[in-house]
Amino acid sequence: MKSIYFSLVFLCLLVKPSYSQNANPARFVKAADMTIIGKMIQTRNIYQSLDTIDYPRLPAAVKRLLTMSAGIAVSFKTDSRFLKAKWCNSKSKVGSNMTAIAQKGLDLYVKLNGKWQFCGVGKPLEQCTETSLVNNLMEGQKEFLLYLPLYDEINDLEIGISSHSTITAGTIPFKSRILIYGSSILHGASASRSGLAYPAILSRQTGLNFINMGLSGSAKMEKEVADLIAKIDADAYILDCVPNSSPEQIKSRTDYLVQTIRNSHPKAPIIIMQSLIRESGYVDAVIGDRVRLQNEEIKSQFLNLQKKGVKDLYFISAENFLGNDHEGTVDGTHPNDLGFYRFTEDIRPKLLKILAKYNIK
Amino acid sequence: MKSIYFSLVFLCLLVKPSYSQNANPARFVKAADMTIIGKMIQTRNIYQSLDTIDYPRLPAAVKRLLTMSAGIAVSFKTDSRFLKAKWCNSKSKVGSNMTAIAQKGLDLYVKLNGKWQFCGVGKPLEQCTETSLVNNLMEGQKEFLLYLPLYDEINDLEIGISSHSTITAGTIPFKSRILIYGSSILHGASASRSGLAYPAILSRQTGLNFINMGLSGSAKMEKEVADLIAKIDADAYILDCVPNSSPEQIKSRTDYLVQTIRNSHPKAPIIIMQSLIRESGYVDAVIGDRVRLQNEEIKSQFLNLQKKGVKDLYFISAENFLGNDHEGTVDGTHPNDLGFYRFTEDIRPKLLKILAKYNIK
Repeated sequence: MKSIYFSLVFLCLLVKPSYSQNANPARFVKAADMTIIGKMIQTRNIYQSLDTIDYPRLPAAVKRLLTMSAGIAVSFKTDSRFLKAKWCNSKSKVGSNMTAIAQKGLDLYVKLNGKWQFCGVGKPLEQCTETSLVNNLMEGQKEFLLYLPLYDEINDLEIGISSHSTITAGTIPFKSRILIYGSSILHGASASRSGLAYPAILSRQTGLNFINMGLSGSAKMEKEVADLIAKIDADAYILDCVPNSSPEQIKSRTDYLVQTIRNSHPKAPIIIMQSLIRESGYVDAVIGDRVRLQNEEIKSQFLNLQKKGVKDLYFISAENFLGNDHEGTVDGTHPNDLGFYRFTEDIRPKLLKILAKYNIK
Repeated sequence: MKSIYFSLVFLCLLVKPSYSQNANPARFVKAADMTIIGKMIQTRNIYQSLDTIDYPRLPAAVKRLLTMSAGIAVSFKTDSRFLKAKWCNSKSKVGSNMTAIAQKGLDLYVKLNGKWQFCGVGKPLEQCTETSLVNNLMEGQKEFLLYLPLYDEINDLEIGISSHSTITAGTIPFKSRILIYGSSILHGASASRSGLAYPAILSRQTGLNFINMGLSGSAKMEKEVADLIAKIDADAYILDCVPNSSPEQIKSRTDYLVQTIRNSHPKAPIIIMQSLIRESGYVDAVIGDRVRLQNEEIKSQFLNLQKKGVKDLYFISAENFLGNDHEGTVDGTHPNDLGFYRFTEDIRPKLLKILAKYNIK
């Protein structure tokens, strides 16, 4: 009797886990074994933009920002009918103008009928999270892109699939390399999720590889940063660094930045963008004046460089970046998803026209 | 000598505060003394939607949600060249799909050239915050609207103006009363700030007073809630409660909800809206099926009520609520600001056409 009792207890112990576990038991694989896209440069720290230890002279704020994973995504193929993820974040607080999903979470896209389509998000819970991304997918192998957090370091990222399915590294889905250097707006503030940062939108819409070198609050064209940008291999360079640079900095630093890129990349187009007009600037006269002076100075610098004979240099004006209803920002400075939608609708055709001249298409 | 020393110390103590204070010393007034708009019902707790103690039978979740300040705004006039605010929040955590500005912060609009225009936000810092809303405004008295947090209780709200300026209660800037009862989407998830919740957008765009009775996750047409809605005085009633209600709940509860409102308000138009198609539903077959069943059931209920002879009843279909690029949500369910923009563009003309029949314009 006693042995039957123990056998039953033993059986229950054996059986119980399969009932108490999630209905979708997952097999986890390391995201690092998949294809990592959107990187400005190859790194040992695969989820960071730069191995900052190799660049001791960069400004401290720039180094800190380049440990984040803005613009980086994981490309993979799987026939799993569900996807999960595990990852760890830093202990940083979420900014008041960001969602935790954008700052510390994941954003999944799937290719359907030849187009990238939103598929699901990974909501960050604690410092380390295990969560579902999507369930009940239709049958068959599909391509996925998993965008990493915009404003955080990420570690130990794993993707969970059903135990009977397969997962393989994906292709690099976007062609050429167009580096964008810029401020928090480029970095992704304040997209609601990482796939809605503007280089990510442009890449999915155009099939071109727009690379996010966003440095929130710190895109100030410092000499060390200009030297770093010149070392980054790209087919075109977009400079969206006016919002963080004072008129004086724009005056004293633009020439070095552009000439340094030009010296290392003699034929690559360099596209300078004005700052979007901060919505705050329509009501706060001091902010309005500053943006106007910044935009006048960058225009002046562009014309000077042209006069000096710098070729393949382009300029995009800010007139219509955010529409005219004043609703395109979260806080008067950072576009919300409506603002980013209008911004990409405005700049996409202008960029494509320039890039097509260089057979970047 | 000693007395001179003490006199100097005393002088320093007197003088020091004016140097160490902010360059814009403010005089604070209680927001409760201004005009409070957007309320579904008069309450003793002025920043809460309902004095829930008076409604013991309401479901607990509904009561908790109705202590929040979604849809409430403060209307005032001032000639101050800057505005500050002080307020206290609850200790609740910010949702991963919300910004802290939307959930716990403030959103300021100013009337310029006859139109409401975004002016600034109050970023919540700690549990109690004192912060600047806007600076360097142009001269002259202007009208302001300060939207309160969407997903939090707020207390002790004060507005700071320059010591030499005046502040007075504003008018009620929107006409009539159109009550909207609905889910988290109505409540404001996931607008980036409280002025971008959809009733707030509609009110500014149309001049009509759309009142936010959003009950995140809890708009399930319970009998007690139907009885409460019927007691609320309004010129029209919009029911956007399909997203939270199961097909079975829609089947068993819609008739009572509509008939109860109709009995108390014999001539007021009642407008039933389908659920927006959750973006998750395009990739997750189970979610897709659920939304389809919810929307079929509400259509069926609408047709039944029409057959029974309920007059002044309208129906708005969900086909085009979020556009067709699948980018209009933060998480597959809750619209981001792009989604809300498309949603209001779609429903506004439909609502105005119905309301105009009743001379609500």
